[in-house]
Amino acid sequence: MGAAILPDLGAEILIPVCAVIGIAFALVQWVLVSNIKLSPARDASGNSPGAGGGKNGCTDYLIEEEEGLNDHNVVIKCAEIQSAISEGATSFLFTEYQYVGVFMVAFAILIFLFLGSVEGFSTKSQACTYDPFKMCKPALATAAFSTVSFLLGGITSVVSGFLGMKIATFANARTTLEARKGVGKAFIVAFRSGAVMGFLLAANGLLVLFIAINLFKLYYGDDWSGLFEAITGYGLGGSSMALFGRVGGGIYTKAADVGADLVGKVERNIPEDDPRNPAVIADNVGDNVGDIAGMGSDLFGSYAESSCAALVVASISSFGINHELTAMLYPLLISSAGIIVCLITTLFATDIFEIKAVKEIEPSLKKQLIISTVLMTVAIAIVSWIALPSSFTIFNFGSQKVVKNWQLFLCVAVGLWAGLIIGFVTEYYTSNAYSPVQDVADSCRTGAATNVIFGLALGYKSVIIPIFAIAVSIFVSFSFAAMYGIAVAALGMLSTIATGLAIDAYGPISDNAGGIAEMAGMSHRIRERTDALDAAGNTTAAIGKGFAIGSAALVSLALFGAFVSRAAISTVDVLTPKVFIGLIVGAMLPYWFSAMTMKSVGSAALKMVEEVRRQFNTIPGLMEGTAKPDYATCVKISTDASIKEMIPPGALVMLTPLIVGIFFGVETLSGVLAGSLVSGVQAGASEHARTLGPKGSDPHKAAVIGDTIGDPLKDTSGPSLNILIKLMAVESLVFAPFFATHGGLLFKIWN
Amino acid sequence: MGAAILPDLGAEILIPVCAVIGIAFALVQWVLVSNIKLSPARDASGNSPGAGGGKNGCTDYLIEEEEGLNDHNVVIKCAEIQSAISEGATSFLFTEYQYVGVFMVAFAILIFLFLGSVEGFSTKSQACTYDPFKMCKPALATAAFSTVSFLLGGITSVVSGFLGMKIATFANARTTLEARKGVGKAFIVAFRSGAVMGFLLAANGLLVLFIAINLFKLYYGDDWSGLFEAITGYGLGGSSMALFGRVGGGIYTKAADVGADLVGKVERNIPEDDPRNPAVIADNVGDNVGDIAGMGSDLFGSYAESSCAALVVASISSFGINHELTAMLYPLLISSAGIIVCLITTLFATDIFEIKAVKEIEPSLKKQLIISTVLMTVAIAIVSWIALPSSFTIFNFGSQKVVKNWQLFLCVAVGLWAGLIIGFVTEYYTSNAYSPVQDVADSCRTGAATNVIFGLALGYKSVIIPIFAIAVSIFVSFSFAAMYGIAVAALGMLSTIATGLAIDAYGPISDNAGGIAEMAGMSHRIRERTDALDAAGNTTAAIGKGFAIGSAALVSLALFGAFVSRAAISTVDVLTPKVFIGLIVGAMLPYWFSAMTMKSVGSAALKMVEEVRRQFNTIPGLMEGTAKPDYATCVKISTDASIKEMIPPGALVMLTPLIVGIFFGVETLSGVLAGSLVSGVQAGASEHARTLGPKGSDPHKAAVIGDTIGDPLKDTSGPSLNILIKLMAVESLVFAPFFATHGGLLFKIWN
Repeated sequence: MGAAILPDLGAEILIPVCAVIGIAFALVQWVLVSNIKLSPARDASGNSPGAGGGKNGCTDYLIEEEEGLNDHNVVIKCAEIQSAISEGATSFLFTEYQYVGVFMVAFAILIFLFLGSVEGFSTKSQACTYDPFKMCKPALATAAFSTVSFLLGGITSVVSGFLGMKIATFANARTTLEARKGVGKAFIVAFRSGAVMGFLLAANGLLVLFIAINLFKLYYGDDWSGLFEAITGYGLGGSSMALFGRVGGGIYTKAADVGADLVGKVERNIPEDDPRNPAVIADNVGDNVGDIAGMGSDLFGSYAESSCAALVVASISSFGINHELTAMLYPLLISSAGIIVCLITTLFATDIFEIKAVKEIEPSLKKQLIISTVLMTVAIAIVSWIALPSSFTIFNFGSQKVVKNWQLFLCVAVGLWAGLIIGFVTEYYTSNAYSPVQDVADSCRTGAATNVIFGLALGYKSVIIPIFAIAVSIFVSFSFAAMYGIAVAALGMLSTIATGLAIDAYGPISDNAGGIAEMAGMSHRIRERTDALDAAGNTTAAIGKGFAIGSAALVSLALFGAFVSRAAISTVDVLTPKVFIGLIVGAMLPYWFSAMTMKSVGSAALKMVEEVRRQFNTIPGLMEGTAKPDYATCVKISTDASIKEMIPPGALVMLTPLIVGIFFGVETLSGVLAGSLVSGVQAGASEHARTLGPKGSDPHKAAVIGDTIGDPLKDTSGPSLNILIKLMAVESLVFAPFFATHGGLLFKIWN
Repeated sequence: MGAAILPDLGAEILIPVCAVIGIAFALVQWVLVSNIKLSPARDASGNSPGAGGGKNGCTDYLIEEEEGLNDHNVVIKCAEIQSAISEGATSFLFTEYQYVGVFMVAFAILIFLFLGSVEGFSTKSQACTYDPFKMCKPALATAAFSTVSFLLGGITSVVSGFLGMKIATFANARTTLEARKGVGKAFIVAFRSGAVMGFLLAANGLLVLFIAINLFKLYYGDDWSGLFEAITGYGLGGSSMALFGRVGGGIYTKAADVGADLVGKVERNIPEDDPRNPAVIADNVGDNVGDIAGMGSDLFGSYAESSCAALVVASISSFGINHELTAMLYPLLISSAGIIVCLITTLFATDIFEIKAVKEIEPSLKKQLIISTVLMTVAIAIVSWIALPSSFTIFNFGSQKVVKNWQLFLCVAVGLWAGLIIGFVTEYYTSNAYSPVQDVADSCRTGAATNVIFGLALGYKSVIIPIFAIAVSIFVSFSFAAMYGIAVAALGMLSTIATGLAIDAYGPISDNAGGIAEMAGMSHRIRERTDALDAAGNTTAAIGKGFAIGSAALVSLALFGAFVSRAAISTVDVLTPKVFIGLIVGAMLPYWFSAMTMKSVGSAALKMVEEVRRQFNTIPGLMEGTAKPDYATCVKISTDASIKEMIPPGALVMLTPLIVGIFFGVETLSGVLAGSLVSGVQAGASEHARTLGPKGSDPHKAAVIGDTIGDPLKDTSGPSLNILIKLMAVESLVFAPFFATHGGLLFKIWN
């Protein structure tokens, strides 16, 4: 067996140092972005403010002499619009957090009561679950610490989403202004801002988790299985927040988008982001609260959950039993290495290769993915070599399985590379550079109906290769290291999360920048540049969603495995009626959930359409541009509608595991988890890709209709399905001891 | 234990007698329909030809004095159009059967070779699978008889589909002519014709199966488990034909429909079924080959498979072991009782209650469902009482489970009533009398996009209650009688198949009747009447599809259980990697399949659109009605396209079990079956209900687009998914001994 090369103290130092480096790097990027001043330039000599910074090599570019480069009015107008968007987003998030806060507190109480009741709130130590001859901390301690880590996860998620939104609204107007100097400049601002968010999130999540583990250890001492069971609350907290963030934000952004488009583009024939459209500010706010804050919370949740799943399995494997701290912290070390790798990768985009033309944007983003994956493979090999004993055992449903360190390396690597494959397949099916999207665009010739038929078919088809990639990674990682293998494969896929988030966040920022250019009345050349950035961003956003669903599949399977272990189930046999009805009902849940969220988007959009129509009809001079529309009312409508509409789908996801666990017991719950996992992955992935196609192609009416249909699928229902499958699994895991003790009421009565 | 009340000889007489009564009843209905002459009336005194028959109480109706009641030209024109439709349908089916025939022969050879190779083509008797101390017939015999029953199933399916088509094309023009006398008259013709098809199919399927069992018994003697294993080939044959029938017919009908609508309604602004539209005959042919022949084959397949699943499980239970023939034939006795019940039920529609107004049609059809279900419950109770011992044992994955006869009654009854619930829920979500469809229709106000969003959401939502109904029936029937319970629950759902088919077939016949009225240039009042029939038919067709998917779920689960028993797997544990990857890939298959079929419809429709445009542009006088379009070319395009396009999706379904079984083995195949089952049920059910909504509602452009998008989902992809899940299960069952012996090559190499 033997010990790891890296001493425990080394691991304890390395992790926080990497996290701090990540945060520092994010701050440097922030400083670089904020060098672009959103106040009129200091002099009128033609030197732009950004060039004054000099730090990022800005002095050697060719200043393009654009109209209005130093037009004070334009800069002031941009700043005004930016603050309107920022205010709208902040106010929505505060409202959302108020409601969700109440829920989180209530749910925290529930966790404490349910888990505390397992041993009747006894404060006495109890026999350990996996080693009845040793004494472990009481169930009441698990209840208390799970509650604390649940709240910690929730708060970290809120901070992640909120910071992301703040950064994005800080960067959008600056991107617009930089676009006056060229597409390369604008790209760097948008990408840097994305990087700020990516690194802050990844480093912050890692640091909080690391600190929590060390603090909890003060109480738990050698009872590592108890310690890491309590830590799973962190994943549940992060994921619960993410659910409401995704659903609420998703409904917000699509209600505003659909409402603005249907009245503006179709009825009034005014262009997108026209300042006369009353819903235009709400639309831009939506990008920030949905695509930025929602996605930030979502990916933080995935990261927290996969770490927790890996840790909880490791704690009952030889790492935990023999108290090998370095090996135990292997998941955190992988994430630490990921931060450093992503840091190096980012430099390639911002400093080493410089983008000069529109056509270089997409390849540059793709290069980011490839570079980070290649470097990360090396990093994983190093971490696996120094942090793991050459041979160890992993808990495998009741028995211990011997694993070599190179096998675990392969598990992480297969996850990482499966992520890259999923990313590229998604790109193939969503980029207008390839035949699938061109075919869909072509089908617009015969109208919206054939367009949607081809788009749906394309969405369904795009699922095939990703599913095979996921299946292969599951098979390989499971064969090598059971459920722990799957958990670290998920971590591998998420290890380059900082780069992934940077690429993801860059899209909505460019989108907003374009909106601001339009609203500020800037020249069409600026708009063309931001549109080019946005188009590349749309495809890369699809790549990000591919990653999200792929990692969600692995994470929830790992959590499912941990749940099964903790609930002391040895097999989940499809051929027992309890499991099978769970399976078929679980497979139905993604459809139920999608129906709810799509209906919500539809209803919210209808309200928005009515308000926009009302304003056009009752405000004189609005169409002529002489009167200002009432933006605030539209923002309020989106806010109210999305807060109200996010509750039923949220309740469905949060309550299902509780109801099934309490009334039907752990076997049926296992079925539900497996069913929702296999069905949710397909539905989610196909919805991500659906009718993304026509965007950027011949923009006639059929394409607009296809786009409007695809939007709620890809931006509201699809991403939320990732969370659905993960959240139900982590919730089941946290409540497993309660369900195992008090669950299955219905069958207890029946028998 | 004790024996059944009904002696073996009684069962042997009762079954064929019921089947013959069913056939005789169908012939009587045929005679009544054919009393309506499709040649000009014998006299011109105002007495219609139909009234001359007198048999069906026709003399006492009030003859409405319509324009053109005895117009010779109209009658001749109707006859002409009918024969064009009939010829097109016949020619398509013959072409289809030629291709499929080659495939069936090839597949039959494959079955013989694969199953024969299990024991190396030895002609010696072997130890029985379930009782190693007894000798059973050699594997070669199973191979030979499976091949024979496979071909028998295929032929019966062809006959079912072809007869159905012939009856429908025989009835459509007669319905048009009767519509001149009132909506009640037309309804009775259409419904009677549906009944002809329903009873012929149900009775024919039962009779062939009964004869095959008795003939096979001459060779097998006391080796009942071998006998009924060989009989499963009957289900596979029926289902394979049904697959190609559904897919080919589905592509045909939707290509013609979409092509005709897009050029006719949208580009040229001519009404539906206008004789100037070159695709109009192809469109009407499509209704007959897709909705009639395809559905006939499909439901015959379901019936054959559920019978086979029940029989194969019974053969290794106490019925088979103790050679209790009456109890063994319980599934066939249930079907026999079903024929008699449906016969009585039909009389309620045709003779007891008479329809006088449009608004009575839908309630009358619903009454059919309720009456047949109530009567059938009584019939099941009687059959269970006289044909079963009061207590017996059922094979349950290695052990025997004691079951009482009243428990088995409950299993069948729960399936029957679940079918009724699914039917009514489907009706609620697809009938314009209730709020869901009205909401969707309402959403057309804001355009096609919101319409499709609401329609998709509605489709997803309509899955919820049916899934719970299926889950409850699975749980109840499985708890009482393991896999046998599920098989008989499926039989219960299908026991009223004759009535179900009559209701189903009635829709396309009315649709065709409307088309003929339009093409023959008859008055708008006739068209309004057939449209009313058609609208009721659309909703009831949705009910039929609900039944089809519900029974498919139960049937495939029963087949899956039989497969697992035959392949000697004791558990299908989701937590093993082999099973899990099967599960996730299996869940992907319905999406892959849907992508293929939707793409096929799209491509075929594009070809049709181009041809229709070409004819409008190149044939002078076509729009003015002075020149006739070239109907035959459109028929040929639909035929060629659907034959060509049906091969890839067909191959996907047929080859998947073979490839997975041979390379990955029975565990992975179990996962694939479970995955495709749970995912296919949802996808299928939601596609059935999708955007059916707008039909019949405010027919503006948005609704037409929504309708066109929903059509391929509900008429091509959705119904084929039923077959996908059943066919893969029955194919696995037939090949189980081969996979168990020679399968799993990849893992054999790996280890």
